[in-house]
Amino acid sequence: MKLYTYFRSSAAWRVRIALALKGIGWTPEFVHLLREGGQQNRPEYRARNPTGLVPTLETDTGDLLIQSLAIIEWLEETRPRPPLLPEDVLARARVRGFALTVACDIHPLNNLRVLRYLKRELGQSDAARDAWYAHWIAEGLGALEGMLHGVPGPFCYGETPGLADICLVPQMANARRLNCPLDGYPLLLRAEAAAAALPAFRDTAPERQPDAG
Amino acid sequence: MKLYTYFRSSAAWRVRIALALKGIGWTPEFVHLLREGGQQNRPEYRARNPTGLVPTLETDTGDLLIQSLAIIEWLEETRPRPPLLPEDVLARARVRGFALTVACDIHPLNNLRVLRYLKRELGQSDAARDAWYAHWIAEGLGALEGMLHGVPGPFCYGETPGLADICLVPQMANARRLNCPLDGYPLLLRAEAAAAALPAFRDTAPERQPDAG
Repeated sequence: MKLYTYFRSSAAWRVRIALALKGIGWTPEFVHLLREGGQQNRPEYRARNPTGLVPTLETDTGDLLIQSLAIIEWLEETRPRPPLLPEDVLARARVRGFALTVACDIHPLNNLRVLRYLKRELGQSDAARDAWYAHWIAEGLGALEGMLHGVPGPFCYGETPGLADICLVPQMANARRLNCPLDGYPLLLRAEAAAAALPAFRDTAPERQPDAG
Repeated sequence: MKLYTYFRSSAAWRVRIALALKGIGWTPEFVHLLREGGQQNRPEYRARNPTGLVPTLETDTGDLLIQSLAIIEWLEETRPRPPLLPEDVLARARVRGFALTVACDIHPLNNLRVLRYLKRELGQSDAARDAWYAHWIAEGLGALEGMLHGVPGPFCYGETPGLADICLVPQMANARRLNCPLDGYPLLLRAEAAAAALPAFRDTAPERQPDAG
C-alpha cells in the first residue's frame, strides 16, 4: 500500500498508527503541506484526493481512499486482526463517538488551512490564533476526559489500544506543541502514556518520519 | 428511543433522517441552542453528552450515544435494514469518505459555537463571518462534487439513499440558507433533488420540527 502522508498531519498519523498496529507494510509518498505553495494543491494530488488534504491511501489494487477514519474502518473491515474497535455494538459506538469528537470537534478547527485563514483573511495576530487553538483544545479535551470517567484503562477503552487512542495521541501531541495545559485530563494522560510505550505509536510520530523538518 | 435534538442542527438532522429511513420511531427531547444561554450547556445535558453538542441518542436500554456518525453506524449495526452503507468494502470506504468530508471538513467550521467565537472573541463583522462560512462551504462542496464524478445517481452513490445523502442534504440546506452559489455542483444538486422526493428527508427538515422557530 502507498500512503500519501505529511509528518505533522494528525490525520495522517492516525492512519500510520493503524497500519502499524495491524502490522501492514506501506510505502510513503510525501506531500509537503508548506512547500511549493502546498504540494496538496498540485493537480496530480487533487486528482487523487479532491479535498486536497492528507492522508490518501492507495490500496494494493490501486484504489484511492480518503479521510483517516474511513481508511481505518476499511482497514478494520479488510484486516480485522488485531481489532481497533470492540466487538460489542454499544462499546463500538462509544469508541467511535470519542474518535469523532477528536476528528470533528477539535482537529478541523486547528488544522493548517484554518489557522492560515485566521491570519491571512481575518488579520488575526499570532496571540489571537494561539488563543483560538487553545480554546478548542480545552473544549474538546474536557469532553473527551468526561467520556472516559469510570472506563477501565490503561488505554482509552480498556487493555488494548484502539481507534480512540489512535485519534487521541496525535491530538495530545498537538496540544503539547502549543503548550496547552494538560494536567486537568488524568484519564487522557493515562491513555497517552500507555500508547507511548508501544512502537506503533512511537515510530509513527511526526518527528520520526523521513519528511520531518 | 429518545433523541436530543435541535431543529436547525445539521448533525441532529442527519440522525433524524437515518431513523426515518430505517423506520425507527423516536421521542424528541428538545435542546434549544439559543435559549437560556444554550440549553446544551445545562449540567443535566452535559452529564448525558460531555461535548455539549447535539444530537444525543438515548437507546431503549437507556444507553447514551453521541456523535451523529457514531449513532448512525450503531443504527446500521443493530438495525441493518434498509442499509445505509453499501456491502462492498471499497464502496463503504468511499461513502464514509464522503460523509466524513461533510462532518469533518465543512460542518465543524460553520457551526454555531464557531460563528459565535468569530464574532465575540475575534470581533469579526457579519460580512467577514459570512465570507468565512461561504469559503468553507465552497472548498467542501467542490471536493464532494469531485468525489461523485462518474458515480451513477440519482443519489450520491447509486439508486438508494445512504450515509452520503444523509450528510449532504443538511449541508446543502445550510449553504442555501447562507445564499451560497450552488450551480457549480450538478451532481450534488442531483442527489439533493432525489432526496427531496422522500419523506425521510422532507419530514425531518428543520422547518418541519416542532421546536422550529
